[in-house]
Amino acid sequence: MSSVGRRVAEALMVREGTSRAWSLVLEEVREGYARVSMRIRPDMLNGFHTIHGGMIFSLADSAFAYACNSRNETSVAQTASILFLEPAYEGDELVAEAVEDARHGRSGAYNVAVRTRDGQAIAQFQGLSRTLGRPILSSQDLL
Amino acid sequence: MSSVGRRVAEALMVREGTSRAWSLVLEEVREGYARVSMRIRPDMLNGFHTIHGGMIFSLADSAFAYACNSRNETSVAQTASILFLEPAYEGDELVAEAVEDARHGRSGAYNVAVRTRDGQAIAQFQGLSRTLGRPILSSQDLL
Amino acid sequence: MSSVGRRVAEALMVREGTSRAWSLVLEEVREGYARVSMRIRPDMLNGFHTIHGGMIFSLADSAFAYACNSRNETSVAQTASILFLEPAYEGDELVAEAVEDARHGRSGAYNVAVRTRDGQAIAQFQGLSRTLGRPILSSQDLL
Amino acid sequence: MSSVGRRVAEALMVREGTSRAWSLVLEEVREGYARVSMRIRPDMLNGFHTIHGGMIFSLADSAFAYACNSRNETSVAQTASILFLEPAYEGDELVAEAVEDARHGRSGAYNVAVRTRDGQAIAQFQGLSRTLGRPILSSQDLL
Repeated sequence: MSSVGRRVAEALMVREGTSRAWSLVLEEVREGYARVSMRIRPDMLNGFHTIHGGMIFSLADSAFAYACNSRNETSVAQTASILFLEPAYEGDELVAEAVEDARHGRSGAYNVAVRTRDGQAIAQFQGLSRTLGRPILSSQDLL
Repeated sequence: MSSVGRRVAEALMVREGTSRAWSLVLEEVREGYARVSMRIRPDMLNGFHTIHGGMIFSLADSAFAYACNSRNETSVAQTASILFLEPAYEGDELVAEAVEDARHGRSGAYNVAVRTRDGQAIAQFQGLSRTLGRPILSSQDLL
Repeated sequence: MSSVGRRVAEALMVREGTSRAWSLVLEEVREGYARVSMRIRPDMLNGFHTIHGGMIFSLADSAFAYACNSRNETSVAQTASILFLEPAYEGDELVAEAVEDARHGRSGAYNVAVRTRDGQAIAQFQGLSRTLGRPILSSQDLL
Repeated sequence: MSSVGRRVAEALMVREGTSRAWSLVLEEVREGYARVSMRIRPDMLNGFHTIHGGMIFSLADSAFAYACNSRNETSVAQTASILFLEPAYEGDELVAEAVEDARHGRSGAYNVAVRTRDGQAIAQFQGLSRTLGRPILSSQDLL
């Protein structure tokens, strides 16, 4: 049976417009952790024929969202920063891996690595989440 | 006749997959400045029925790109950070306004405000660009 | 008579250990705005004989604090980011100018430029504040 | 015999004004890693009787510097961001632990956790370094 975190992420993905639009693949979710992948398409490229920074951020931000909502407490991004290390190209498969660095009160700090499938570092992301304190899935949903 | 900055931005938009995918509207570009707008569609929403943070970032990052390339010197984003202030919803029109705060050597610092069309602050973005030193449009193109 | 913002900043400076330690000079404070200067001393230098990034950040963060507390509502920094543009040296006088970009609810977005006295850009800082909702100076204090 | 990273950090500390001013303690340095501690003094406090955000940043930035210089290649901070999770108080001992997340070309991405000695998360820092390509210690120094 899949983890609470995975079931929450799957429920969010059904409600999202973006995960369909970007063809996100949920690889793994557990408490405080998520890994998501995406293949780079022509409609994700900037004017220099590399992936648009916004799409790298979007993938990292999605992994961050599944990780910070993995305890079934509605959480939203407050701030994020991203370091762009290397461009990626059409057809490349990117993998974003979000790890929880710290939690305190309603705040959570997450670190997300974005790499190509064969491990080349593309970007590094940091995000701060804030928990709003209501569940995403009801206890009924979780039966 | 339109400014060099506008002509560079228009050339970039033709080459980009993203500006078409996101239906970006170029409102104004001049040296060190760009303003771009986007209407929020269902495929831009997250699982909480508000715009995905990645799409807010993508809009801001696009305005940043047109501003930092406005002198016709190829420039790329090195790092960016974003503060999310307020959610926005399907049908809202978002406007991103990028202003150059400083330049030194090959580096440029940009500040981008994202607001709804009626002026509600949605997010604030900061970006660092690096100039690669080759033109985007040739002198032929600029005739 | 000085502004509320200036009187709050002066009260904070008296209570701070840091403003004395760093010999900060309060140049101007008004609603949503602060300007602070500091002269670079030998004990502020890193191992490369330039000012330590932490001291540039500390100056910017101080200007941010006086700006976000300028309405006499206790406010604290939640996150900040900084772009380092150019080194500065012993004896240089740095000026940090904090401007409010946006406010929404309890959040505030601030942009701080750090320059030498003669206008050379040194760093650009962005901060997010959170208001805790209690005054710094009582109505008695403000008489 | 101590590692190259430790010897570089010790050489930097001798040249720095700040490590003496802040009484930094170098706990461990190895390739791509550094851990540094600092005890909070009255001259490090802000107007709310907690440690000034600038001093938390300064400690994290110092750990970042020792980590990104640990291969004896002069490296400087380009950008940094910090998430403040919890205040800390006079007398608390803070420990900053810098880990290398990625390197590509001349760029390096570092993640720094700042905690109290007993493990309470205080802040999370992310930094981008740029290598300038000259050694800090000569081969003579390293004999």
